[in-house]
Amino acid sequence: MGVGKFSDPFLLINFKTYLEAAGKRAVELARIVEKVGKSNDVRFGVAPQFCDIAQVASAVEIPVFAQHIDPIPPGAFTGHVLAESVKAAGASGTVINHSERNIQLIDIDACVRRAREIGLSTIVCAGTSKLAAAVALTEPDMVAIEPPELIGSGRAVSKERPEIVSDSVRKIRGTNPNVRILCGAGITTGEDLYAALKLGAEGVIVASGVAKSLKPESVLFEFSQAVRRFL
Amino acid sequence: MGVGKFSDPFLLINFKTYLEAAGKRAVELARIVEKVGKSNDVRFGVAPQFCDIAQVASAVEIPVFAQHIDPIPPGAFTGHVLAESVKAAGASGTVINHSERNIQLIDIDACVRRAREIGLSTIVCAGTSKLAAAVALTEPDMVAIEPPELIGSGRAVSKERPEIVSDSVRKIRGTNPNVRILCGAGITTGEDLYAALKLGAEGVIVASGVAKSLKPESVLFEFSQAVRRFL
Amino acid sequence: MGVGKFSDPFLLINFKTYLEAAGKRAVELARIVEKVGKSNDVRFGVAPQFCDIAQVASAVEIPVFAQHIDPIPPGAFTGHVLAESVKAAGASGTVINHSERNIQLIDIDACVRRAREIGLSTIVCAGTSKLAAAVALTEPDMVAIEPPELIGSGRAVSKERPEIVSDSVRKIRGTNPNVRILCGAGITTGEDLYAALKLGAEGVIVASGVAKSLKPESVLFEFSQAVRRFL
Amino acid sequence: MGVGKFSDPFLLINFKTYLEAAGKRAVELARIVEKVGKSNDVRFGVAPQFCDIAQVASAVEIPVFAQHIDPIPPGAFTGHVLAESVKAAGASGTVINHSERNIQLIDIDACVRRAREIGLSTIVCAGTSKLAAAVALTEPDMVAIEPPELIGSGRAVSKERPEIVSDSVRKIRGTNPNVRILCGAGITTGEDLYAALKLGAEGVIVASGVAKSLKPESVLFEFSQAVRRFL
Repeated sequence: MGVGKFSDPFLLINFKTYLEAAGKRAVELARIVEKVGKSNDVRFGVAPQFCDIAQVASAVEIPVFAQHIDPIPPGAFTGHVLAESVKAAGASGTVINHSERNIQLIDIDACVRRAREIGLSTIVCAGTSKLAAAVALTEPDMVAIEPPELIGSGRAVSKERPEIVSDSVRKIRGTNPNVRILCGAGITTGEDLYAALKLGAEGVIVASGVAKSLKPESVLFEFSQAVRRFL
Repeated sequence: MGVGKFSDPFLLINFKTYLEAAGKRAVELARIVEKVGKSNDVRFGVAPQFCDIAQVASAVEIPVFAQHIDPIPPGAFTGHVLAESVKAAGASGTVINHSERNIQLIDIDACVRRAREIGLSTIVCAGTSKLAAAVALTEPDMVAIEPPELIGSGRAVSKERPEIVSDSVRKIRGTNPNVRILCGAGITTGEDLYAALKLGAEGVIVASGVAKSLKPESVLFEFSQAVRRFL
Repeated sequence: MGVGKFSDPFLLINFKTYLEAAGKRAVELARIVEKVGKSNDVRFGVAPQFCDIAQVASAVEIPVFAQHIDPIPPGAFTGHVLAESVKAAGASGTVINHSERNIQLIDIDACVRRAREIGLSTIVCAGTSKLAAAVALTEPDMVAIEPPELIGSGRAVSKERPEIVSDSVRKIRGTNPNVRILCGAGITTGEDLYAALKLGAEGVIVASGVAKSLKPESVLFEFSQAVRRFL
Repeated sequence: MGVGKFSDPFLLINFKTYLEAAGKRAVELARIVEKVGKSNDVRFGVAPQFCDIAQVASAVEIPVFAQHIDPIPPGAFTGHVLAESVKAAGASGTVINHSERNIQLIDIDACVRRAREIGLSTIVCAGTSKLAAAVALTEPDMVAIEPPELIGSGRAVSKERPEIVSDSVRKIRGTNPNVRILCGAGITTGEDLYAALKLGAEGVIVASGVAKSLKPESVLFEFSQAVRRFL
């Protein structure tokens, strides 16, 4: 189940390498995300660790994203992350160039092409509006603008630095009219999400706000209400 | 099920990022490896891709190794491989510093410590006898000497360059009397394996010789016979 | 002495880590480049190794470029290449993201900003027209399109794949109307250079064609004639 | 002028990428180091940035070290640091694997071999006694133990953590009886240096303690007195 076909906002929950969202707890959290999404008719996706993709993907029907792939073909690449393997495990997409896993420009392009080749959706991240417009030229399905200085800060990009979001939307549209635009960093409340959508974002990436929350279900419900209010 | 407690040779089958050993075929191959091992009372392990660990580990009881881990604690490390996650998926160990995934010396040490902390066995690879002796100082459970120029060559290190194996055994023993010593590169026949054991190796790593074989079961059986002949 | 102010084509001779263009031979080659450039009123620059910058820059007046800088401020960064140090040695610019020294997208941007901060010209390289347009968004002084598969091949990008050059010019102009556009890879003759200029390139990067030539003076003279013919 | 032949302590002043020790100030500082060394008959060396090597080496006769080299042969390696180039610029040695420029284990070995091939002395750094013993197996001329947590701290390894130094000496001797053993991190006073020598170090690496000092000459004099007292 892809996300490209929906005009509704897309919310990706990034599990990072949090213990709170690893192993069995990855499956549990993914189920909660799916449940709240279904109840409220909101499009959520989850990005668990590589080792959790198979179990998460067999437990839920919402889109599952890898957090990274390597720009390699099948072959002798011990210890690398092969796009085909990610897909076989049940993922429908992958994050590329997250600020915690920056890669070379040439590899961003190669990863987008590899993913497209085998039918994985792509979200390429960038930390500034300029770089977001640059990566949009590699023609991924989605671009995510996430200022690294706000990631994990609890201060939402859409509230603290709204101009980064609106500026990114404008610049990205200048290089790629079709890419879906996400934003992220510090988003923890419905208000943060609502503000992001109002600024032109077509979705968000949220990590600790959900994955480290004591009440992820409440946060997800609040996000859902914000989406419904926006639509 | 660990491997450190056995005095018998240990044979790790590295699935690399071969399509022939990915997804469902990873599970099938792991089952074949387990079956041949059980029938012949030979200790095999498998090292599938990250995304396949969970499914392989739930299908077989033999040791499952990750092909790599990152030297990170739990936290905000999107796209990295967390030791805890590898273990939660069912792996009992990990390969570190494979020649196709070389890491910094400081990270070899950090990975060995992280793995030990949470109870994962470790196999640290090195390409020369000198470097094998060096990595043995980080006190992993196993050290694997694999000359990169012979990897995937079909020319076995134990036949083509037997002195590398014997020299490694001697040098590794000089820095670490307890570590289990494996060798690898080009091993495809029972003779290759037998020669390796005769030279002092206490196990081997085999990749394409099994994973890309049209008859993996035959190759594994031949390996088993070589082990039984050696014991 | 910068290059940005000239509307004439700019030809950068990349000395790479060729022994033929290192140490004293770097100084000699730079002198030949300068001499031919002056005699024919053609704008040349040279990019020697880091350790040769000071001696080359004190021997010639043409622009000297570093082959790379690191995206670091002054401080505790042992073994890195500081923009200020490159400039103090006499360089007036730097190459960034050469295909033999690819860096992360985030670092391309950081290097361009660091260089601009202290007054170094920048040439950012990219291997495809799409990526050339992407790096142009970081607003360097120059962008160089160099398809890696043709680098060092002796087959000129401007003759073998003219559409790459024209396509790059068009795409780069779409993201940055002011950047100077260079091309490179396989350029060894005056004809190759002339073709590049005709396709819209405003300069070229040449390495082995000059640095490994037995008669660099002849090659440089041929280049100069091609420039004069074009103007 | 090498350092391997002296049984006297060797003190390397690492200029890092400090502005206070770059460009002309690198030459000035190197001259001060040389002057104090000569007056007091103490063996000093300096490790300026790549771009400063040529000017420093032509201004002083004491050993000049590069801060890093890349494990490459001459050829098409734009932006890399070639051992031959470092030597041609006047360096007599190179630091390898500084904690601010960690490299892969395989590259430590390759760098030591490349340096030896062309006659550059080598100092391989490591952050723990165990890793210091490991790198000693690559047979460099010197091994430097520098706990990263104390680098730049002003708290000397030899005073704060004397057991790290003595332990390193013992472990390094276990793998390599001939290598010269240096220590570093936080050394700023004559007492710190004296303590290091007493613990078995045969030299030290000092960076900010000299390079960022307002009175480098005094610090160097104090170091010299400590050496003379020790001998």
